[in-house]
Amino acid sequence: KPLSEVLFFPSELACLEHIFTPSLLCSCYCPLPHGVETSFSRLLRHLLSASSSLDVCVFAFSNMDLSRAVVALHKRGVTIRVLTDNDYSAILGSQVGILRKAGICVRCDADSGYMHHKFAVVDSQLLITGSLNWTITAVQGNMENVVITQDPDLVRPFIKEFHRLWLLNDPD
Amino acid sequence: KPLSEVLFFPSELACLEHIFTPSLLCSCYCPLPHGVETSFSRLLRHLLSASSSLDVCVFAFSNMDLSRAVVALHKRGVTIRVLTDNDYSAILGSQVGILRKAGICVRCDADSGYMHHKFAVVDSQLLITGSLNWTITAVQGNMENVVITQDPDLVRPFIKEFHRLWLLNDPD
Ligand SMILES: [Zn+2]
Ligand SMILES: [Zn+2]
Repeated sequence: KPLSEVLFFPSELACLEHIFTPSLLCSCYCPLPHGVETSFSRLLRHLLSASSSLDVCVFAFSNMDLSRAVVALHKRGVTIRVLTDNDYSAILGSQVGILRKAGICVRCDADSGYMHHKFAVVDSQLLITGSLNWTITAVQGNMENVVITQDPDLVRPFIKEFHRLWLLNDPD
Repeated sequence: KPLSEVLFFPSELACLEHIFTPSLLCSCYCPLPHGVETSFSRLLRHLLSASSSLDVCVFAFSNMDLSRAVVALHKRGVTIRVLTDNDYSAILGSQVGILRKAGICVRCDADSGYMHHKFAVVDSQLLITGSLNWTITAVQGNMENVVITQDPDLVRPFIKEFHRLWLLNDPD
């Protein structure tokens, strides 16, 4: 059966080091709880499961752990495309500059309406979508949901829409 | 196979009268296009398919067509529960007053974080969720998505979360 999972937020606060560097599990001495699986750690795990591609389409992207995950995937050779909203990308704390500096291709929607999506597609087969913007407030402060599914009837339309919006926002 | 569908917004503008009063299809002379199925008309149809219950959990609820649909269901005897965010419900154009005047039970989340969900559950078996707030801007102006699914692995957690939030915001 294809994967179907729902994550609710706000997420508990816990150390995420072992998600990024599994071998270091025993050697982190930060004050946060360790070895705790949270909504946010599960979200990061699903993103870090990418082996070939990750398409991200989010209104707001200022969360540094999420940006760290995306940069880590890029370094591993995963093809990354990030589409975000122009109105938010100018805001202090936006990760767009950091992603671009790392060599990741980021396009900003300049349409008058908001590009209000909050979804990602992993390896063209896993859809991650919901109400959660990629910010710290959303992860730690708000009541939010994220749906994770491999149902092709849901994944396929999002792949098609991402493709459409990506071309629509081609700066050339 | 259970229903799986994705709607993308902004929606085309079209007359919605036939959705509310099917028998009047031929007699509407408003200037909008008629007989056009749009993302928004499909969303309304799914909501109006409710026969026993509708649970709504949305950050922002100011769209008058959506409020008209909810009131119509209430008049038909469908059990309605609406949970919305306190920060938005005070805003001009919020439909909370209209819903309450119609006799619908509305609870407002007063938590410090946003109640940022945008989902509804129809008859405890159809989940409608996504990035779309129940406003006119979201429907007509923004790029948004709505996932509609009967997958029990997705529907069940949302029913449970709605129940939890509903009790949490009991004013008594
Ligand atoms: Zn630690
Ligand atoms: Zn008309």
